[in-house]
Formats: sequence, C-alpha cells, structure tokens
Amino acid sequence: MIIIGELINGMYRDVGRAISNKEADIIQHLADEQVRAGASVLDVNTGPYSKNPKDDMKWLVESIQAKVDVPLALDSTKPDVIEEGLKLVKKKAIINSTSADEEKMGKIFGLAKKYNTQVIGLTMDKSGVPNSKEKRLELAAVIVAKAMEYGINTDDLYLDPIVLPVNVAQTQGIELLESIREFRLLCDPAPQTVVGLSNVSQGTKVRPLINRTFVTMAIANGLTSAILDPLDKELMNAVITAELILNKNIYCDSFLDAYRKK
Amino acid sequence: MIIIGELINGMYRDVGRAISNKEADIIQHLADEQVRAGASVLDVNTGPYSKNPKDDMKWLVESIQAKVDVPLALDSTKPDVIEEGLKLVKKKAIINSTSADEEKMGKIFGLAKKYNTQVIGLTMDKSGVPNSKEKRLELAAVIVAKAMEYGINTDDLYLDPIVLPVNVAQTQGIELLESIREFRLLCDPAPQTVVGLSNVSQGTKVRPLINRTFVTMAIANGLTSAILDPLDKELMNAVITAELILNKNIYCDSFLDAYRKK
Repeated sequence: MIIIGELINGMYRDVGRAISNKEADIIQHLADEQVRAGASVLDVNTGPYSKNPKDDMKWLVESIQAKVDVPLALDSTKPDVIEEGLKLVKKKAIINSTSADEEKMGKIFGLAKKYNTQVIGLTMDKSGVPNSKEKRLELAAVIVAKAMEYGINTDDLYLDPIVLPVNVAQTQGIELLESIREFRLLCDPAPQTVVGLSNVSQGTKVRPLINRTFVTMAIANGLTSAILDPLDKELMNAVITAELILNKNIYCDSFLDAYRKK
Repeated sequence: MIIIGELINGMYRDVGRAISNKEADIIQHLADEQVRAGASVLDVNTGPYSKNPKDDMKWLVESIQAKVDVPLALDSTKPDVIEEGLKLVKKKAIINSTSADEEKMGKIFGLAKKYNTQVIGLTMDKSGVPNSKEKRLELAAVIVAKAMEYGINTDDLYLDPIVLPVNVAQTQGIELLESIREFRLLCDPAPQTVVGLSNVSQGTKVRPLINRTFVTMAIANGLTSAILDPLDKELMNAVITAELILNKNIYCDSFLDAYRKK
C-alpha cells in the first residue's frame, strides 16, 4: 500500500501560516511525523491562500527534502506551479492531478514525460463527477489511453474514482468500490488506484470510523494507494491489518510496529 | 446484515457452568444483551462438556425463548441434539451446520425439510478444509445442489467458506474473500454467506482489530451474515458503518444508535 500523507496542505490553518511565514521547522516536523507513521509519499499543496504559489511550492519542496527522503506528490490545479516543484524533486514524483479533460491531460502528461513522473488521474471531466461505475470506467479508459500515448507506464498511473461524502451521496459507495476493483483490469501492467480518503466522511459526525471502514473496504477491492492522514493511528492500524489479511505483510505478533519501522 | 450472536456456547466457562447448574437468568441475560447490541439471531451450543446435550439443548431453547423473541441457530455436530431444539423453536431456525459430506447432508437437509429451517453449509468434506477458492466453490456447489434436491430455498442456505487463523494460514485471506464474493453467484436467489468470525484472529495478539478488519473486508465482498460477539462495540460499529457505505442503512448523524434501536 502506498500511503500518501495529506497533511502538508496550506488549506490547514497552521500549515498555511507556516508557509506564509516561511517556518520550515513546522513543515519539516509534519513531514517527519508522517513518514515515521508510515507514509511512503508526501502530498505537497500550497493551499488556496498562497499569494505566490510557484515560490511557495519551491520552498515547500526544498524544505521537505532537507528533512526526509521520500517521493513527493505535487498537488495543484496549476501546471506551472507543479512544474516549479518538478524542477527540484530528488525522487520520482507524482503529479496530483489531471482530469480526463483533453487540454488538461495534454499539459499534465507532457510534464510527466518531460520530468519522468507518475500521475494521478481523476475520473471526471468538464461535465463533472460521474455518478456511476460505468462512466468512471469510461473516463478511466480515456486517461489510460492518453497516458500510453505519452509513453507513461500504466503502473505509473494512479486512477482516482473521486470519493464523495457518504452523507450526501450514499448510493456512490458501491459504485466507488466496484470502480476500484475494475480499474485494475483496464490495462497491463495494472494501474495503481488511489482515493482522497477524507472526502468520504466530510460533514459527518464520526469521521475517523467512516474513513477507516471505507479504506478497509476499498483495500478489499484492490486499492493500492490512498491520500490520508497517517497520524490517525487507528486508521493506519486498519490499513496495515487489511494488508496483512491480503498476505501483503507477513504476520508476526508485532506486525503493526513492524510495518511502521519498515 | 444478519448478526448471529455467538456467546451462548458452553465452551465459555461461565456459560458451561450456567448450563450445568441450570441458571436460566445467566443465559437470559446473555440473550438479552446480545439482542440489544444488534444480534438478529442467537447461536445456541451446549458446548463440549455437556453430559446430556439433548436435555441441555431443550433447556437452553426454552430459557432463551422465555426472554427474547429472535430466531435461533442450533449449533451442534449431532443431528439428534439439533432435533431436540427444533421441536421447540418458535421462529424459523438455522441449523448450524452441515458439511458437504453426503451422509451428513442427508441428515441435516432431512431435518431442515421436516422442520422448515435454514441451514449453514460449511465448504469442507471428509478430506478437510480446502485451501483454495476453487475447491471451496466446488463444495459449495455440492451443498447447493443437495439443498435444492430437498426443496430448500437457496436463500435459506448460508454458505460458510471456513475462516482460518491469519497467523497460520495467511494465504487463505484472499481465497476466503473471493469465495464469499463468488458464492453469491452460484444460484438464484443468491445464497446467504456467513463466517465464524473469531477464527480469523485465533492465537493472535490483536484479536479485536483483526476481527473487525476482516469482517469489513468480507462485507465489501458481499458477506450477508456473521457469527460474532455483538458485545464488541467497535466490531459492531465497523459492521454498521460498512453497511452504511453499501447504502443498506440510511445515513443520519446518529446512524450507529439508530441501527441498534432497530
């Protein structure tokens, strides 16, 4: 399981403040904590209030890489902001993200090819987020075809079915889980699958319980990656145990600690 | 989800003692607690130390039915012990269980037909518990065919893939989950699927975590029933939330309480 730590995002008040004040120690502490908790990749998002997102992205990438040695997922709606980060990354990065929109894919896969990166592809287009598995698969196939056109290996592509909150889109749970299962069958090598987990519990009263239950169900359907809060210990315990049941970690009495020390 | 409460089993020391001393209040308290916690069926097992299992089964059924109004799963390896219970049950019972062994199926489905009951069918035979999905499906098909021969509706049949402990049979997790998914496709109407949940964590150090993770993954694969401890609140929260995500309970902020009050 590829755990992408979500906490370095300027939308969180403390992080936004650390970015505008250029307090590297705060960012580095968050980076270090997430990696120790089991994150194998860190998401990097300057947030919606950044006045100079290109400079902020550069500063974030440099600050994080001065502390930890993991790949970064550069998270922005703006390709030029992502490119500033790509110029600096030391490990193969993930671009977060493209949609299935033709123009957007052209820009993002162009960057992916130029900088040899992985890409998250959201199964949505200009008409919005689909409400069926079939439409998600259709858009996923469009993204896969475009990735291949640009010579991106399909296992460097992360397909994201776009998780919706269970309290407003309750019929989507089964569509999402089946999408995750079927995305894996679209090409060979199979693409990665990813979810932005916390969306599922947005606006509910028991967010951690809903988050960890949904991710466990998604792993049972073949999910290979998730963007989540690795400091939520119960959530990480669920992820580690689900992988144990799928025989991806070896059982020992201390398998939870063993995973975190990897 | 059909929750079968597992706690009335003479193998537990307190329950074994209550059975031999005929302390009905202890049994009735356990019955009541399990139903309040969300059990829709109660398993009834006289346990391995019963000196007179036929009389003990009768006494258990009468004691439980004097307190609660739910169907019972009569759990014994001996058909004559089960029949003593069947003579007394007020609601459509479940026989727990038959294997795919010809002689055993003849006896159990004969009882099921005579007393109009449901049946749990374990996908094992004289050569033991299978170690592949394919063999489990083969035995499941044998059980389904025999049930039909006896005129049992296929949705009155609970197919059990036989859960093995993750610490000694780690490769079986994926075989079990895929079996649960594929059992549902064997006939129309689809059979129920059931697991004896606590087996999965036998001998491990973090039993509740492994139990609730496995059951969540099984529900994601279509599990319709489980024999478990409904007094494990975190476990029941996982079950209720997994069903919420599959849109089987309606979301409200107090969905956990709402389920238990049903």
